[in-house]
Amino acid sequence: MEIIKSRQNKLIAHLRKLGTDGDYRRKSGEFLCQGLKLYNEALASGAEIRSVIAESGFEPFPDGAAAVTRELLEYVSPMKSAPELIFSCAARRELGPPRGRLVLLENMQDPGNVGTVMRTARAFGMDGVILAGECADPYNPKSVRASMGAVFSLDLFYSPEERPALPLYAAALSDAAVTALDFEFPEEFILAIGNEGHGLSDKILAEADAVIKIPMESGSESLNAAAAAAVLMWEAYSGELKQRKSGRIGSRGPENG
Amino acid sequence: MEIIKSRQNKLIAHLRKLGTDGDYRRKSGEFLCQGLKLYNEALASGAEIRSVIAESGFEPFPDGAAAVTRELLEYVSPMKSAPELIFSCAARRELGPPRGRLVLLENMQDPGNVGTVMRTARAFGMDGVILAGECADPYNPKSVRASMGAVFSLDLFYSPEERPALPLYAAALSDAAVTALDFEFPEEFILAIGNEGHGLSDKILAEADAVIKIPMESGSESLNAAAAAAVLMWEAYSGELKQRKSGRIGSRGPENG
Repeated sequence: MEIIKSRQNKLIAHLRKLGTDGDYRRKSGEFLCQGLKLYNEALASGAEIRSVIAESGFEPFPDGAAAVTRELLEYVSPMKSAPELIFSCAARRELGPPRGRLVLLENMQDPGNVGTVMRTARAFGMDGVILAGECADPYNPKSVRASMGAVFSLDLFYSPEERPALPLYAAALSDAAVTALDFEFPEEFILAIGNEGHGLSDKILAEADAVIKIPMESGSESLNAAAAAAVLMWEAYSGELKQRKSGRIGSRGPENG
Repeated sequence: MEIIKSRQNKLIAHLRKLGTDGDYRRKSGEFLCQGLKLYNEALASGAEIRSVIAESGFEPFPDGAAAVTRELLEYVSPMKSAPELIFSCAARRELGPPRGRLVLLENMQDPGNVGTVMRTARAFGMDGVILAGECADPYNPKSVRASMGAVFSLDLFYSPEERPALPLYAAALSDAAVTALDFEFPEEFILAIGNEGHGLSDKILAEADAVIKIPMESGSESLNAAAAAAVLMWEAYSGELKQRKSGRIGSRGPENG
């Protein structure tokens, strides 16, 4: 088997650019994924895998992968310590208008937070994520890593021009009409979570059907944005599970709960 | 006002070492904090501030601070872009045995996760954090930053030799006796959260009074450790708030809820 050793190799240059250049990712419609665990997730999710490189000698060597040196894996990987396997996937096409249960992220800056929200969203039965304003790229390698495979199955939308006709609930820290304790989520909705430092814009707060606050101890200003999202998605999901248990709805919910 | 310009200055060398060297932090009983927001939190919390440096010309210049060059702030700060103010605080002394509502972190590796759990713990009325096994240092600058000031007010304990006589609840992903839906937290307890990749050790799972699982959609293996901690601490806190509302207990709860 031939082993790629040169940084000038086209595939190597392509993968490295996928890891570092958001514009290049958008143009190519492809993103970088790292590690065997994520590779198995991609296979299980039916994701469209485009290219695979693996360290020469890696066992079992993936079908269709190109063998490369350790030095090239380190070169391609944006992580401090590169895994033995790196691959690229096609970004999922948007499948019609957003619908179902959606989380809207507005100006969420940290790719780790965006990825963590995706991971939690999948776990708690959300259908997709709307990225509004200046959000971190969900296909940034840090987002992909934090999403733990959720990036392969969630629908991702970028600020759709026509917001779907679903109730919009805005998470806010103060002056909220309702606390999360007294709120019951309907079957379909959009939950909006804002920027790490500044929360949601006045525009979203004004457009929201309800503004929801998570009660906290006095002296605590706020939660981490991904933690706040987790609490509210859990409220929606656990509410649904309780309804399901009581027989009021039956179509959704966990198979392993 | 004299401006410190030399990296050899004792205070500068001390602060830089606090930011980079965990052993040095432990020996000196001090840790590094960055930025005006955290400084105001430290003042409001009554934290024992030891040393302050600020950029020459910073207004209002903090009392007792040493003026330094921008270059030295960058040198001291472990962040990519240093704030205009950096300071050190004394680590809080352990105040008697752990008690109240505690979260136990076992082998949690990521300082961002440890800090996020601290932030959420304070928001949801937990009294302290027990760090067991090989946890990231809660005084690592990344933990301190993610804790958003919670590091100044929570009690922090390191694997106390005698575990307090409180019920121990272990968060687990599978084979759990109880789901979070059916669980009611008592007034005092220890909630154990495990390592990001491997969860809790068999030892903790065996010793636990109950093993609690957060139900999820099938296909989702797990949540981010800090997100799982947020959901379970919220369950405990919201349960308490509901009891309080119904008049069953009255002494705890938020003032702004």
